[in-house]
Amino acid sequence: MTTTLSVNSPAIDNSHLKALNQLDIPARLLLGPGPSNADPAVLAAMDRQPIGHLDKAYLALMDEVQELMRYAWQTDNHLTLPVSGTGSAAMEATLANTIEPNDKVLVCVNGYFGHRLVDMATRYGAEVSTLHRPWGEVFTTAEIRTALATHRPAVMAMVHAETSTGVCQPMAGIGDLCREYDCLLILDTVTSLGGVPLFLDQWGVDLAYSCSQKGLSCPPGSSPFTMSDRALAKLNNRKSNVANWYLDMSLLSNYWGKGRTYHHTAPVNMTYAIREALRLLAEEGLAARWQRHQNAAERLYAGLEDMGLECHVPREYRLHTLTTVRIPDGVDGKAVTNQLIDQHNMEIGGGLGDLAGKVWRVGLMGYNATPENVDKCLAALKQVLADLG
Amino acid sequence: MTTTLSVNSPAIDNSHLKALNQLDIPARLLLGPGPSNADPAVLAAMDRQPIGHLDKAYLALMDEVQELMRYAWQTDNHLTLPVSGTGSAAMEATLANTIEPNDKVLVCVNGYFGHRLVDMATRYGAEVSTLHRPWGEVFTTAEIRTALATHRPAVMAMVHAETSTGVCQPMAGIGDLCREYDCLLILDTVTSLGGVPLFLDQWGVDLAYSCSQKGLSCPPGSSPFTMSDRALAKLNNRKSNVANWYLDMSLLSNYWGKGRTYHHTAPVNMTYAIREALRLLAEEGLAARWQRHQNAAERLYAGLEDMGLECHVPREYRLHTLTTVRIPDGVDGKAVTNQLIDQHNMEIGGGLGDLAGKVWRVGLMGYNATPENVDKCLAALKQVLADLG
Repeated sequence: MTTTLSVNSPAIDNSHLKALNQLDIPARLLLGPGPSNADPAVLAAMDRQPIGHLDKAYLALMDEVQELMRYAWQTDNHLTLPVSGTGSAAMEATLANTIEPNDKVLVCVNGYFGHRLVDMATRYGAEVSTLHRPWGEVFTTAEIRTALATHRPAVMAMVHAETSTGVCQPMAGIGDLCREYDCLLILDTVTSLGGVPLFLDQWGVDLAYSCSQKGLSCPPGSSPFTMSDRALAKLNNRKSNVANWYLDMSLLSNYWGKGRTYHHTAPVNMTYAIREALRLLAEEGLAARWQRHQNAAERLYAGLEDMGLECHVPREYRLHTLTTVRIPDGVDGKAVTNQLIDQHNMEIGGGLGDLAGKVWRVGLMGYNATPENVDKCLAALKQVLADLG
Repeated sequence: MTTTLSVNSPAIDNSHLKALNQLDIPARLLLGPGPSNADPAVLAAMDRQPIGHLDKAYLALMDEVQELMRYAWQTDNHLTLPVSGTGSAAMEATLANTIEPNDKVLVCVNGYFGHRLVDMATRYGAEVSTLHRPWGEVFTTAEIRTALATHRPAVMAMVHAETSTGVCQPMAGIGDLCREYDCLLILDTVTSLGGVPLFLDQWGVDLAYSCSQKGLSCPPGSSPFTMSDRALAKLNNRKSNVANWYLDMSLLSNYWGKGRTYHHTAPVNMTYAIREALRLLAEEGLAARWQRHQNAAERLYAGLEDMGLECHVPREYRLHTLTTVRIPDGVDGKAVTNQLIDQHNMEIGGGLGDLAGKVWRVGLMGYNATPENVDKCLAALKQVLADLG
């Protein structure tokens, strides 16, 4: 008995059949908000055949990735693992695993990703209150204390490195306040991990998330997530299941922990890639890595100043990995970014939200944080501004 | 004013710093339930520098991927796109976007993934009822009609290709029943897409999901999702937001559709990979692709029979991509799979759930569905059984 197609099947419809050429990707220098270029060693590591997600060789890899993520973040958190998606999935994982319906959540909003945290937290049934600052400013511990005392949230979420504004939030004292008010602290480190100083445990951060395609010089698709024992206690005491199966850490921790219980198929090749990215970070060392980013950023600031361009953020709060540059009066910002792509194969970003049309966003992240790239960027920008001026 | 690390920063803790060697992955022939081996052309496509997820070159790629997914699934659904995660994320996307709290959902359960659908649907607040069949059997249209008439669900979910049992569900008439009872039909095609005949529109399927690492011969991490206009109408009429931000199609369709509105950073290199996988499928053609899988499966059945081994599923319901083989009495199934890995670098799967310890699972999927691989598998299995016997 055969089930040959012609007998039982409808005819195949070829209306969506396209004959495509092999992939042809332009060689871009990615100096925008991300993705950044990958380290060629990371691409080489990714370009291997997959193995099974329960293969002992894969399980060994998982341990290595977890341990080096702890180093990168400066945390001892046992529950530290890559989420099988891009940074927004890891962001959602922090909220999904901490929020039960009607929990009070306080979100500090001074940019695009603060708004996203509000949107996500609301979907998980939280009673969300917000503390606002203009895009480009930071929060003070005094105003955070007042907000904690007023709202008494179970969870507070804030952004360490706001990719939409180029601000780096000073973290001293904030974790202590969250402990004083018995509240978990979630921190967005999407644009800081692997680029600027991060000390999760010293800062008293309970949950953090990041991405692979910025400071780690890896393609997007495997996203660091960590949670403290304090956060885990809240998870273990939930009355309801986590309202998201794919991101449920009570299940995922059994796969990434001792049980090795199958949850979902891991993005195996992305794990190869992030393992190599973390290996390279460990080889360079955090101090050297952070210094390299600082040097690149300071070279950029000096060059912009020479060109008469202004940064949007006061110097002391600037994020080394991502610089917002004010678009001068009379200049069409979009025309500039288009010409950078078309004539220089160079990507820089435009503004988002409150800063749309007002700034460019220049990223110097991971593999790309070099003096050569700063000089290329400044030269290209100078030429395009002259051409369009 | 510099912010040199040594001034403001705590000391770096090196307790999690490990010096690792470069990645060393064993060369496995993956003949289990997935991941399967990737086509080398897919790995080559993936091994390119990322570009921006709003780059016009990337936007062109997105259109190509969407169009070839429609061909692969035989659907005209406009909303057809890859989810930025592995197959379980795409599975969750079908439920998250159709279920509002207290919606009635009927799940047909005859294997592991039916149970997972129940778990997920429950988390989205559905009132779930189930129709059960033993692991290895299929559902009849008569019993489905009775269940629809009894429960009157808004959504029915079932599995076309049960990876845990090796059963392929006949689909004739089921879509018509769902329309008669005004219910959306969700279909799991994780182990059928790119391997066995699939005609979503002819079958009246409203939502389907799949993965990249089986019939498509791609690494895991980019997962096909599609929804019909009927399903979209339910999404557009929701009273509440989709309870999952990352998978919310009302947002994602603006990025994958005309608006190109940024939602989350796409896993760019995984899109390169699945685009190449779909290009190869289009080049081979669906009829030839399905026939190749059928031929490989029949060669396997014949070889197993020669060895005196039995398949768990009656021939007419066998899934060509995944065969469940009964472990003979007195044989330690786990010892066999371990020895296949250790001595032959060959992965086959064990049983899950009700079939744990009772079957092996042999996958012949995508790039791996060749007579040479069938022969390798049979020879290795014969030798291991002799060695252990």
